[in-house]
Amino acid sequence: MTRTVFFVSDGTGITSETLGHSILTQFKGLVYRQITVPFVVDDELTHSTVAQINAAASADGAKPIVFSTLVNDSHRDILARCNGQVMDLFSSFVAPLEQELGMRSNHIVNQSHSIQDQNAYRIRMNAVHFALDNDDGARTRAYEDADIILIGVSRSGKTPTCVYMAMQFGLRAANYPLTEDDFDDLSLPKCLVPYKHKIFGLTINVERLASIRSERKPGSRYSSARQCDLEVRGIEAIYAKHNIPFIDATEFSIEEISTRILAKMGLQRRLQ
Amino acid sequence: MTRTVFFVSDGTGITSETLGHSILTQFKGLVYRQITVPFVVDDELTHSTVAQINAAASADGAKPIVFSTLVNDSHRDILARCNGQVMDLFSSFVAPLEQELGMRSNHIVNQSHSIQDQNAYRIRMNAVHFALDNDDGARTRAYEDADIILIGVSRSGKTPTCVYMAMQFGLRAANYPLTEDDFDDLSLPKCLVPYKHKIFGLTINVERLASIRSERKPGSRYSSARQCDLEVRGIEAIYAKHNIPFIDATEFSIEEISTRILAKMGLQRRLQ
Repeated sequence: MTRTVFFVSDGTGITSETLGHSILTQFKGLVYRQITVPFVVDDELTHSTVAQINAAASADGAKPIVFSTLVNDSHRDILARCNGQVMDLFSSFVAPLEQELGMRSNHIVNQSHSIQDQNAYRIRMNAVHFALDNDDGARTRAYEDADIILIGVSRSGKTPTCVYMAMQFGLRAANYPLTEDDFDDLSLPKCLVPYKHKIFGLTINVERLASIRSERKPGSRYSSARQCDLEVRGIEAIYAKHNIPFIDATEFSIEEISTRILAKMGLQRRLQ
Repeated sequence: MTRTVFFVSDGTGITSETLGHSILTQFKGLVYRQITVPFVVDDELTHSTVAQINAAASADGAKPIVFSTLVNDSHRDILARCNGQVMDLFSSFVAPLEQELGMRSNHIVNQSHSIQDQNAYRIRMNAVHFALDNDDGARTRAYEDADIILIGVSRSGKTPTCVYMAMQFGLRAANYPLTEDDFDDLSLPKCLVPYKHKIFGLTINVERLASIRSERKPGSRYSSARQCDLEVRGIEAIYAKHNIPFIDATEFSIEEISTRILAKMGLQRRLQ
């Protein structure tokens, strides 16, 4: 039996999805198809969402699971009458908080990912541009302004990690690729030496690296197990010699790598 | 009175933060400082988290608000005894779902942002690399492989939007900057013509654009109101002439822009 899962929101649906995915990972055997319904901002759209849920209920022969972040009372009442199992973020958490805080909540829709704080938004935009401008050692003169400089061999995950740290934490993250030449005498590239305190290393399992590189350049020296092994040994020797903190990115997602780097480097986010 | 808000997690804390921020935006007058406690994976770490919460309770003279995504029963029991108002994601939603699905959940910690699905993860990594390789018109020969090509004037938000669509949806998003020369005869740049069906436009308020550009190049022609006005008029004329769908990015966050683009273009995500 396949279930249908709905993520219903008056905004982008991203909070609803994050919440729902986090819950659903706890049900390993569950087979489901998912539908995100963003921008449900009036009664009519709520009614048509209910119709969509009810159609899925009939087709599946089982109640759809509905994760909702709807805020408006009237819309929540309409949704509550659908033939689905509604997980209502708002009534589960906002009501008890109103009591604890002795405060009425706004009940204003579409707050969560809207551009509320211009200053925070600009920090984030600038951080993303910084990550791109300073990707792959493109520009080393901006390292003065970097919050962190990731190093590692090609395709060990530096770029996505930098971009994520920019987007999520507003941090200015540069990255610099170490190559074969750097492994000869195990010295740090000159441009990095003044910023040693900002450097964090990534390493990766050799087979995984070879497989990632093979997708990009199949059958090349670059993607050979031998070359990958040489580079990974080299970079780990550099980390050891210069006492550079590092983690093995093989088994971690970008989110996990980024969170761990912050903790290990004692870095403060620029965005909350 | 300032409250302390804790985001407690056995993983990165990102789900807990997303959930908590979404709830807290509903309390506009609330002043709070926030502390994320990630990777709470054993009894000892849970006890020290409780101690941290209790210390904040004493210092503030008010109950801290605690958003928790802890999954392990023993850890949740320990946390439940802290001097805070605990918002427990797990018991609020997982328990009712177990009943509806007739399934026991895994109760396995640290699932949500871990690298569970290698294939999905690779799609995401490749999409991020695609966005960077195809930023700012750097490489137009890969447009064949693009899911979407964003166009707009410099600093109208193309780059962060592409990066976000890659990271969140696994989409291959390229972007191409239109410049003054393109506005002379309002023709589309040649490299874009074969891919017109993939093109989506951004526009932006002239004052906002001037302010963003001024941060980067203060006092320049590039950031002058006159130049920004000229470019914004030009790009909007191109959208009109070629019937290119577009949105005004001024009042929207990257999340909102991306979600709206997907809806308007009828694009399917590559990541769920």
